[in-house]
Amino acid sequence: MRFNLLEIENPMSKDRTEISDIGEFGLIDLLNQKISIKNPSTLKGIGDDAAVIDAGEHVKVLTTDLLLEGVHFDLSYAPLQHVGFKAVAVNVSDIAAMNAIPKQITVSIALSNRFSVEAVEALYSGINAAATHYGIDVVGGDTTASRSGLLISITAIGEAKKEDIAYRSGAKLNDIICVTGDLGGALVGLQILEREKQVYLANPDMKPELEKYNYVTARQLKPDARMDIIHEFRDLGVVPTSMIDVSDGLASELFHIAKASSAGITIYEDKLPIDKQTYETAVELGLDPITCALNGGEDYELLFTIDQKDFAKLEKHPDIHFIGYISKPEEGKVMVTKSGTVVNLKAQGWKHF
Amino acid sequence: MRFNLLEIENPMSKDRTEISDIGEFGLIDLLNQKISIKNPSTLKGIGDDAAVIDAGEHVKVLTTDLLLEGVHFDLSYAPLQHVGFKAVAVNVSDIAAMNAIPKQITVSIALSNRFSVEAVEALYSGINAAATHYGIDVVGGDTTASRSGLLISITAIGEAKKEDIAYRSGAKLNDIICVTGDLGGALVGLQILEREKQVYLANPDMKPELEKYNYVTARQLKPDARMDIIHEFRDLGVVPTSMIDVSDGLASELFHIAKASSAGITIYEDKLPIDKQTYETAVELGLDPITCALNGGEDYELLFTIDQKDFAKLEKHPDIHFIGYISKPEEGKVMVTKSGTVVNLKAQGWKHF
Repeated sequence: MRFNLLEIENPMSKDRTEISDIGEFGLIDLLNQKISIKNPSTLKGIGDDAAVIDAGEHVKVLTTDLLLEGVHFDLSYAPLQHVGFKAVAVNVSDIAAMNAIPKQITVSIALSNRFSVEAVEALYSGINAAATHYGIDVVGGDTTASRSGLLISITAIGEAKKEDIAYRSGAKLNDIICVTGDLGGALVGLQILEREKQVYLANPDMKPELEKYNYVTARQLKPDARMDIIHEFRDLGVVPTSMIDVSDGLASELFHIAKASSAGITIYEDKLPIDKQTYETAVELGLDPITCALNGGEDYELLFTIDQKDFAKLEKHPDIHFIGYISKPEEGKVMVTKSGTVVNLKAQGWKHF
Repeated sequence: MRFNLLEIENPMSKDRTEISDIGEFGLIDLLNQKISIKNPSTLKGIGDDAAVIDAGEHVKVLTTDLLLEGVHFDLSYAPLQHVGFKAVAVNVSDIAAMNAIPKQITVSIALSNRFSVEAVEALYSGINAAATHYGIDVVGGDTTASRSGLLISITAIGEAKKEDIAYRSGAKLNDIICVTGDLGGALVGLQILEREKQVYLANPDMKPELEKYNYVTARQLKPDARMDIIHEFRDLGVVPTSMIDVSDGLASELFHIAKASSAGITIYEDKLPIDKQTYETAVELGLDPITCALNGGEDYELLFTIDQKDFAKLEKHPDIHFIGYISKPEEGKVMVTKSGTVVNLKAQGWKHF
């Protein structure tokens, strides 16, 4: 290509299609169509929680996330330490979702002159706390000025034996669908924080009463990637047949597994794990707790499938819930309600555009 | 950590130190002090062009760069294809500077609703062209909305044999200092583009005359990482004793090598490679061409040192220039001018803060 001013003028005006017309997933699909894989060391490119790269005896898994102030976090209620911790945790969660162990991260930040050195130190204290918590090394990054706000871009590398990697595509008929922890809390916590922010903005003298919402707000502000579960899989000799982390909501993640595995999904409403505080707060807010559990994002729990032969190994686990099974693709993606009705699941992830 | 509203209020107000007070390098130094390496697979963390990670027989090298509209590029003269190509090239240049071969990248973008689908496609056509040019696979990424402008975060992974990696720290006494291509062009090109932008803003009917500046503007808008040199090193059996890419300016990069290698630097003014158009345009702009060559950034050439025994292998290379030698640390970092005067070098990199 040669420098040519004709190319430059109004690069964003002609035959304009808005990104909102095709949506974030539509845009990603469009861009991915043009990508081809050339290197034999690329075992898995786009399309899972992380890429998989050959590294001799082991494989490396690679994932990246971008967090923007005003889009992914709000510093009026999220302390910078927590933002730093969460930025690492969401990447570790993607590594966990491949059944791999995180080893290294790079951390790039862009920030405006609104931020002081002390603010950056607070952010990094959270990043370093997470690195210590997950046993990761911070090995690189980039620091730059931005015109507005704070941006954090983290890339994480993990490691696993090739045969331990859990793709989204491995779920088989009659595998048991499992989810860790509980669901919907991060969404409900976000609603509370947004509500209390409005109260505070209307009357700065009023101290928000957040104590009774401590669990749900913590789910939103400081999620913990489920590396504990990955280490237990190793100890118990379990390799999930498929796995994904719950970042966009359970229903959306179930759709990803169904699509990648060419499978049907049957889950049971009464098996969905919902914490008492999540449930009660959802009701207080006028939200349906089941909808929160199905469509709330950012719980960073693990959704996975296991072969029935592995059920006995996990059956007594206090924090793994068996919510359904893999059915034939023609049976669709359904939920059996408490009353026994079969309803179609809808994938409604977070939309940033 | 527990959610606590007291931590939240005005996280950016008390005992405030401005980032501009300590500078970008000061900030990076401060943050890096708190980082410790825990994993044996981390062979090199922060402090070189890329991190080095053990991968059995080979090592993986990892680097990341963040490019922001309004800070690193200006869409009023930089076509989106070129921005995409350059975003990949600057990362490949860091991989090259480790004497490694790039294999995979992740691409994260944040963009405001000012950008159409067609604009994103133009950006990706440049990214994909670069991926093809350098033989890299795009293996992942993240796409999100931003409140203002375009941001691109790319992470690149490369591969090399452990013994082929060229760190900044390996320069030895009497090694020959070499640089590829020519210097200062990207800075001079930027000055021209900024000047023509002002002309255009003052009178949009006037077509900027850019043809006579085609080389320097291309140096700014579409740099090419010097992978050709890395492949030639392989063919010739040369491993540089140290290497870095010229992103912040020759003098700044020489300082990095001197510091990492505990070495002195002697270079010769009359050996600095400066293109005729760069020279003439600098003079036209009232800039000293030598200062442009020493302190201009973004040339993305390779600066490296070789053992004298390897000189014969590279001596006839048309695009490698021998600009000086490694001296004792107590001899300082100096340039011998055309008149024979010895002057101290000053490292004046780009400052984004």
